[in-house]
Amino acid sequence: MHVLVTGAAGMVGRKLTERLAREGQVAGRSISRLTLTDVVPPSLSPALPPELAGRVEARTEDFADPATAAALIAPRPDLIFHLAAIISGEAERDFDKGYRVNLDGTRALLEAIRHEGGRAYVPKLVFTTSSGVFGAPYPTAIPDEFHVTPLTSYGTQKAIGELLLADYARRGFLDGVGIRFPSIVVRPGKPNASAGGFFSGIIREPLQGVEALLPVADDTLFTHASPRSAVGFLIHAAGLTREALGPRINLSMPGVCVTVGEQIEALRRVAGDKAVKLIRRAPDKTVTDIVAGWPARFDTARATALGFRAERDFDEIIRVHIEDDLGGRLPN
Amino acid sequence: MHVLVTGAAGMVGRKLTERLAREGQVAGRSISRLTLTDVVPPSLSPALPPELAGRVEARTEDFADPATAAALIAPRPDLIFHLAAIISGEAERDFDKGYRVNLDGTRALLEAIRHEGGRAYVPKLVFTTSSGVFGAPYPTAIPDEFHVTPLTSYGTQKAIGELLLADYARRGFLDGVGIRFPSIVVRPGKPNASAGGFFSGIIREPLQGVEALLPVADDTLFTHASPRSAVGFLIHAAGLTREALGPRINLSMPGVCVTVGEQIEALRRVAGDKAVKLIRRAPDKTVTDIVAGWPARFDTARATALGFRAERDFDEIIRVHIEDDLGGRLPN
Repeated sequence: MHVLVTGAAGMVGRKLTERLAREGQVAGRSISRLTLTDVVPPSLSPALPPELAGRVEARTEDFADPATAAALIAPRPDLIFHLAAIISGEAERDFDKGYRVNLDGTRALLEAIRHEGGRAYVPKLVFTTSSGVFGAPYPTAIPDEFHVTPLTSYGTQKAIGELLLADYARRGFLDGVGIRFPSIVVRPGKPNASAGGFFSGIIREPLQGVEALLPVADDTLFTHASPRSAVGFLIHAAGLTREALGPRINLSMPGVCVTVGEQIEALRRVAGDKAVKLIRRAPDKTVTDIVAGWPARFDTARATALGFRAERDFDEIIRVHIEDDLGGRLPN
Repeated sequence: MHVLVTGAAGMVGRKLTERLAREGQVAGRSISRLTLTDVVPPSLSPALPPELAGRVEARTEDFADPATAAALIAPRPDLIFHLAAIISGEAERDFDKGYRVNLDGTRALLEAIRHEGGRAYVPKLVFTTSSGVFGAPYPTAIPDEFHVTPLTSYGTQKAIGELLLADYARRGFLDGVGIRFPSIVVRPGKPNASAGGFFSGIIREPLQGVEALLPVADDTLFTHASPRSAVGFLIHAAGLTREALGPRINLSMPGVCVTVGEQIEALRRVAGDKAVKLIRRAPDKTVTDIVAGWPARFDTARATALGFRAERDFDEIIRVHIEDDLGGRLPN
């Protein structure tokens, strides 16, 4: 089948592309064609299987351009992973850009699918959304039945995407599922400026022998899953039948709910005191306040019943990072 | 102050306009100018107070036209009642029209406000939304914290309007409040084709000596408020401070939760057996199934705490209809 990935150059997009290329199949069907698109050039996996050679197209384009969606949908991809988005901080700083990409871009994709042929063309669409659709105050564990009252423009745009996806699915224009990611750690690569970047930083930097700053208290609770799990959620979602999913198609994903202190103890077990000593406490009220407003714990009974799985503990999240991003062993 | 009413020719719009004109003030400030707009000509109240003479403008225009919103907002109305919408049945039949008016039209209004000047112009916007934002299955009583999973395109469009309103309010572009109406009965005038039209019909027609068909079982439970209460909700919302409202600005309104059998007994108390005998049971599976999918009962603790009031019982709803729409007495 023909698979389309939007936002393919992002961290999760790259890892998803690599897995699709490596496995050569998804949702029980072999991949005959793979289209990748992003606003920066998506990378082609170095491990492209021979069957896919010449059948992978990498496009660089603005997803918010109305012509983009029509061009992407014209070849009628069977399975679409829609990951393209302006991230939270940028959507908050640039109101117009966030709405243009996250709302108008998503709607253009849905409209392109609808106009491509209605019931004669009903692709599977896996949409990445976010626990940012929720807004404080929260119950102890947020169930799927909790209302969405986002406190960011990004969360608003993702919540609108969920609503549109559900209406287009209900009308039979597509077969949709929305996957609400928890915090995804350990992010590989360089530190970034996002307020939650330290959740990855306090693991990633010490593993490389580099100091990391911890701006929040050790008892800060949060829910995490690895990038490998994030890709696993998307792949698993692609294989879910409409009957299994039912009419409520937007789902919070499971994760490991731990305090920062528990993250640090997991690091100690995996990499020793030497690594833990590289974490320097540098309390920051701004970051602490932002993180305090984020949802920390979810009741993901529905996702678990549908077979979605994250890591069992934070030690495993660290080991996945070492395996997938550090070549399987700790740097000296 | 300058008050703008969109959808002013609709049933609630007309009654709101009449009350604004009659009282000459709203939210503690006198009305110096009143702008009415609808796609059909809005009627001017016959009882226009002298102070408003020459200060009321009735416009006939397509709300979904992007130029409309900019023209309406250019004179910087202080208070906006945004009632214009394509109703549920039509939005379900005409997918494009529903999204064009209910989503694009609402968004154009919000954008016009934002572009009119940001913090230098922050009008109060009262948005009418609907219990149609909820979708089955429901808890016994739906709290404000229940998730929105609409099962109609209309409900989807209203839910998106709520999200946009909250984000624009949070960003400081406007001072917003979304009012989720329950079923509004008794609707004056002729029977209409909507699936829930019988809730009004079984009261309105017998009061006029005309037979009415009842397509559902007597134990069908639903929540109602009068058109007078609907107007009261909007007026009360206009006077709420941002501090009283808090960040969760979309609210389910109270109503009278009764079975159809209890509606009929109220009719008997108000208008006697003669009226009740005009109700003919004509079970209709299609209507029964549609109504069974609608939310029936709400926990409106927040709205009640904020001072929103509906009728105390269904007898009062019938008496309000007689007072407001039948000149205060029963036809012979």
